[in-house]
Amino acid sequence: AFDCLARMPVAPALVVQSVQTLAQAIGSHGMVGGQAIDLQAVGEVLTLDQLETMHRMKTGALLRASVALGAVVVGASSQLRLVLDAYAQAVGLAFQVVDDVLDVSADSAALGKTAGKDQAADKPTYVSLLGLSGARELAEALRREAHAALAGLGDAVRHAEPLARLADYIVLRNH
Amino acid sequence: AFDCLARMPVAPALVVQSVQTLAQAIGSHGMVGGQAIDLQAVGEVLTLDQLETMHRMKTGALLRASVALGAVVVGASSQLRLVLDAYAQAVGLAFQVVDDVLDVSADSAALGKTAGKDQAADKPTYVSLLGLSGARELAEALRREAHAALAGLGDAVRHAEPLARLADYIVLRNH
Repeated sequence: AFDCLARMPVAPALVVQSVQTLAQAIGSHGMVGGQAIDLQAVGEVLTLDQLETMHRMKTGALLRASVALGAVVVGASSQLRLVLDAYAQAVGLAFQVVDDVLDVSADSAALGKTAGKDQAADKPTYVSLLGLSGARELAEALRREAHAALAGLGDAVRHAEPLARLADYIVLRNH
Repeated sequence: AFDCLARMPVAPALVVQSVQTLAQAIGSHGMVGGQAIDLQAVGEVLTLDQLETMHRMKTGALLRASVALGAVVVGASSQLRLVLDAYAQAVGLAFQVVDDVLDVSADSAALGKTAGKDQAADKPTYVSLLGLSGARELAEALRREAHAALAGLGDAVRHAEPLARLADYIVLRNH
């Protein structure tokens, strides 16, 4: 991934910002740190805050970086970056909540992995903390939050239709 | 490491070159590829060429990158880079040959790891292919090769004394 970033045909200063963005998302404050919490948490009871922190780091940080990188390479304003980041944070967390919901509600064939696997592995999930309907409500709230963030684009929101549809897809998917 | 590179107070174009240098040393043509060969080679008989290829990738590529990064950030000429790369390749391989020698000849306390570990794990080593004295001769030849590379610096060789001493240290160390 870093090799790809280094080869982007954009101004070197934008490549440098991109590398820093991705490195921070991957490191101990991002994916690696979240994975460490995840490994420690097996068999433990996490609070909702702790579970959210873990997911924001483990998968959320890389999803945020994916959105941020698009903004970086076009030299987006800091206001635009904040809007996109709010969107990315909501969608990243929604993805994980839906993942937990599908783990107990989808059949294994549709999911492409063994349903019930996380629950069986005694991993803390949104479903174990909030129940199935509570987790579904949270996912829906996060979908609305993602749409609300995009509304902050003002008139430019019409260009963000693909992002709105992506948020819908992530929450409304059944596999 | 990539985060550190991205924060270097040098021209962005030099950071981009540095990121590319490190990424290539780490990837499938470098450390990761060499590690894959190493895992596949347990219990196999490798030829000397295959063993060298593995080590050039697994540890040599990252050592070469360490030397190359110094040249990149000061904007060294391509001639200087070639000289330093020849030095780095000899030193990188020498390090590995000496590592194999010490695995069978040093005591565990001095080595900081269990002596005889690689041999016991049935890993191909320079000692198993060349014998102890053959491996020692190869290490010495590589040390001379490193010095010869530095001679290519011409008058500037007087600035390269630390590199010459590093080559000596790597080959003449006993732990």
